[in-house]
Amino acid sequence: MASVWAPLAQKVELVASDKVIELKAAAFGWWGAADELAAGADYCFRINGETFPDPRSPWQPAGVHGRSRHVDHSAFRWTDSGWQAPPLPAALIYELHIGTFTAEGTFDAAIWRLDHLVRLGVTHIEIMPVAEFLGDRGWGYDGVYPFAPHHAYGGPDGLKRLVNACHAKGVAVLLDVVYNHLGPSGNYLPRFGPYFSDRHSTPWGPAVNFDGPHSDQVRRYFCDNALMWLRDYHFDGLRLDAVHAIIDTSAVPFLEQLATEVDELKAHLGRHLALIAESDLNDPRVVRPWELGGFGLDAQWSDDIHHALHTVLTGEKDGYYADFGALTDLATAMTRPYVYAGEHSQFRQRRHGRAPINVSAHRFIAYLQNHDQLGNRAKGDRLCHLVNDDRAKIGAALVLLSPYVPMIFQGEEWAACTPFQFFVHFDEEPELARAVVKGRTNEFAAFGWQPQDVPNPNSLETFECSKLNWNELEEERHLVQLRWYRSLIELRRRFSAFTTGRSDLVDASCNEENRWLLVQRGPLAIACNFSALEVRVPLNGSQEPQLLLASKAAPDLTGDEAVLPPESVAVFASDGVF
Amino acid sequence: MASVWAPLAQKVELVASDKVIELKAAAFGWWGAADELAAGADYCFRINGETFPDPRSPWQPAGVHGRSRHVDHSAFRWTDSGWQAPPLPAALIYELHIGTFTAEGTFDAAIWRLDHLVRLGVTHIEIMPVAEFLGDRGWGYDGVYPFAPHHAYGGPDGLKRLVNACHAKGVAVLLDVVYNHLGPSGNYLPRFGPYFSDRHSTPWGPAVNFDGPHSDQVRRYFCDNALMWLRDYHFDGLRLDAVHAIIDTSAVPFLEQLATEVDELKAHLGRHLALIAESDLNDPRVVRPWELGGFGLDAQWSDDIHHALHTVLTGEKDGYYADFGALTDLATAMTRPYVYAGEHSQFRQRRHGRAPINVSAHRFIAYLQNHDQLGNRAKGDRLCHLVNDDRAKIGAALVLLSPYVPMIFQGEEWAACTPFQFFVHFDEEPELARAVVKGRTNEFAAFGWQPQDVPNPNSLETFECSKLNWNELEEERHLVQLRWYRSLIELRRRFSAFTTGRSDLVDASCNEENRWLLVQRGPLAIACNFSALEVRVPLNGSQEPQLLLASKAAPDLTGDEAVLPPESVAVFASDGVF
Repeated sequence: MASVWAPLAQKVELVASDKVIELKAAAFGWWGAADELAAGADYCFRINGETFPDPRSPWQPAGVHGRSRHVDHSAFRWTDSGWQAPPLPAALIYELHIGTFTAEGTFDAAIWRLDHLVRLGVTHIEIMPVAEFLGDRGWGYDGVYPFAPHHAYGGPDGLKRLVNACHAKGVAVLLDVVYNHLGPSGNYLPRFGPYFSDRHSTPWGPAVNFDGPHSDQVRRYFCDNALMWLRDYHFDGLRLDAVHAIIDTSAVPFLEQLATEVDELKAHLGRHLALIAESDLNDPRVVRPWELGGFGLDAQWSDDIHHALHTVLTGEKDGYYADFGALTDLATAMTRPYVYAGEHSQFRQRRHGRAPINVSAHRFIAYLQNHDQLGNRAKGDRLCHLVNDDRAKIGAALVLLSPYVPMIFQGEEWAACTPFQFFVHFDEEPELARAVVKGRTNEFAAFGWQPQDVPNPNSLETFECSKLNWNELEEERHLVQLRWYRSLIELRRRFSAFTTGRSDLVDASCNEENRWLLVQRGPLAIACNFSALEVRVPLNGSQEPQLLLASKAAPDLTGDEAVLPPESVAVFASDGVF
Repeated sequence: MASVWAPLAQKVELVASDKVIELKAAAFGWWGAADELAAGADYCFRINGETFPDPRSPWQPAGVHGRSRHVDHSAFRWTDSGWQAPPLPAALIYELHIGTFTAEGTFDAAIWRLDHLVRLGVTHIEIMPVAEFLGDRGWGYDGVYPFAPHHAYGGPDGLKRLVNACHAKGVAVLLDVVYNHLGPSGNYLPRFGPYFSDRHSTPWGPAVNFDGPHSDQVRRYFCDNALMWLRDYHFDGLRLDAVHAIIDTSAVPFLEQLATEVDELKAHLGRHLALIAESDLNDPRVVRPWELGGFGLDAQWSDDIHHALHTVLTGEKDGYYADFGALTDLATAMTRPYVYAGEHSQFRQRRHGRAPINVSAHRFIAYLQNHDQLGNRAKGDRLCHLVNDDRAKIGAALVLLSPYVPMIFQGEEWAACTPFQFFVHFDEEPELARAVVKGRTNEFAAFGWQPQDVPNPNSLETFECSKLNWNELEEERHLVQLRWYRSLIELRRRFSAFTTGRSDLVDASCNEENRWLLVQRGPLAIACNFSALEVRVPLNGSQEPQLLLASKAAPDLTGDEAVLPPESVAVFASDGVF
């Protein structure tokens, strides 16, 4: 049955290549007709005389302004029956961007790189947004057809082939979805109904209408979107972009409704499904169960852990990094996923966050790098462009042996030399292209960048140079780093004390002057030396410590002190844990 | 010590009649000097060369644009030591407006009417906002000096005398405070700092900045205000106006912080203090303890109970009354304080509310009338202007024998003939006066009112006619109604089954066709006949019911059926309860 929501329209028609069907008004602003479209048929809707693509278009083969194409989801031949994703507490997530993960930049090409991920120990890949956005390349956060896998990546069938192949290899798949705003071009939703509200504003303009008149059907739109990916594309979970920009004062907030509906689907399908939020609220409500007044999401990203780690490794203090930098902040981050849990934030100019009491560390995703922390830099630098590989190894150890769920960004595991720059493809709309270039150069002018030094987001080169260069894996430097990541991941698997979610039982101590940090996790200890000098780290309480892994030469052990080489990390176990 | 918050100012001075003191910048945007002002000294602040009254002015004897006057709160001679307010579950609240409660319209004049309230059984008075607003008369929701009792009511000392006198009579005192917006004239707060934010909007313009940069000190402003009323004026609690317009996405929302700080003060002073919200969110989070993710307020108003009752009594269907009207809605309201607990609301065009599971009825204030439900009508009609006294008696019985905390609006208890119209005093600012007249006539034009039939809010007559006429208490009609209220209040006190907070154990049944409603509260039953005909009401389950009270002739009892006269209510008890 053809249908569309347009609560304020006078007349709605479905325009297919061979016919025009007038839809009948139904309850709650919906319009429908009994007619079925043939799979592959192109169509659009005519509202009060003007035609637009379907807000729920499953495929936009001709881009954001083109006709929608009908998709029969039942036609795909899945081979993953019986598949179950491993639980998040056991997960190692790998964030990737389809356009740059491979030279081809397609769903199908990604399949050929899965073996690399499996050998690394990745349990879940997380795919940056794939919903149709303007042009042939982009990060994906400017999508305007949340139901349509991007034409340049391979459309609906390509995506299904990728998910199916992942499951065949034992890899779960998460999709990044954006429910807080739509992109600047091709967003015809306001022509259909009050999808947006001026009661709240976001960095991208009027907020999505999650709590005003007609918001039930706006929520339906996004909930149905989530359910579609999980049901029709067999995704194992979703990463919800920037939930702090979903502003909703309802008694049952959208995010809680979404979690409840995904819970229902989980029971219905008999499959594990996960919802992971990106949130900068530092509010445990995001991941608390609804029984305790929470939204009931499974996990959230923790930028505080990243920032505490990044600033100690790089010494950077610009922008939001001003709130971090002390080794004690990093020690805090190892025991509590919010460094700011009520403290005053200089960057935010207010107190920020609340203590995540009685919340498992398994509800927080930790990462040394991610698409934002690279791409929001003028030149898309990776950590390995900013610090030497020795320091990067310390960072990797702290993330991969943390009580949190670790995540790696594509190429991080081999210290890839390719940056991840901000790129778009707005050639069709020169004004928008100019605006994004201007926005980007202005943003970085504040940090002292000259316009000519900021890569042009709209140039093809900016996209091309951001693609992973898999040939690097033939070079020793990169193989060394990759082996380090594999060793850490194996170590994480070997000792359950690493994967316990009790961050509250982690004991982290540090010495600002001598630049060492010790993270004690039950019988296991991670000792880090951030200085350029050898330091002595007291392994308090470790009984006859045994070295498990070291990034440099094996440290001397004298009594319960370890002598760590400059810029190194070593992992010890109390005797008896084996 | 003189101090003021002005985080973006270059230079701040305190200008007193005899001196100018330059303040020094201190932490978090504060400016201060060691100098003390003498009690009674007039002053203002000069910021970057322009002078304004103190945002925390304790007294504005010359109105909103005049100088501030220093007040020494320690000078008042309180005689209420050892005073404790009764608990909310035992409360009968009486809402009053200082300007119209008496002919004089002052705090002192109100004292002379307290005996009437005590005889009625009132435990708490709730005073409509007294914070300084433009002009000599007004409802008070347009206050711009939240710390300054209005000059026309008698200023700080007058208010203290009233609270002190109430306590001497055993009456607790609640104050209505407005933290969601400030009035349109005399609001100089934006000249001092970012008190407002354009990230959220409210019906009154930009929202108060409770979650943006600098919001800690904005929260300080309102928290300190609450603490001042409770500490320096000995109030027993506060009613927080329209908390749904306090938009705040922080991990620790302002309302939770406020409740926590009032809790601390409660412990410190050793006095019971209560916070009551006006909320249209239908969200139990407002009154849940913080341990369960709530804001931790003590109670909230329930408009749903009012609307369910009002529409059944009057048959009105305009505006938000469209969502109510069925007897079943009223039956729901007797067992659940939100009639809308997730159901679709026609007025709001979305689903509304969530079930208040495991929340005591003692956390909800029920009322047959209040200032808004009168004053938001074109002519400020009371219920007794809309229906006969017999019907009003049914309404009173349902509120006063409900599991909720009942509240009466001034004069309701004797079916006062005086309306409560919307009035302001904007003579000083003719443009504002014209705007409010226009706004008011436009609002009611939508309901078919001619401009000339809507009272002019700015005319003195509108205010004067809204004053209670205490002489009415010499007339039999009014005395009959007053006796009815007294009887109900005595009955509520007599049987603890009436005051239990277990609304979930109330059994309410109704018959739409025959227009009866039966509310069973343990061994007690309230039987209502809304029709103009005699009806038979089955007193299901009542063992040998005994009549306790009837608004008309005693109903015949045949078996377990009561025959109720037209438009009447009767209260029964099972034999054995005495």
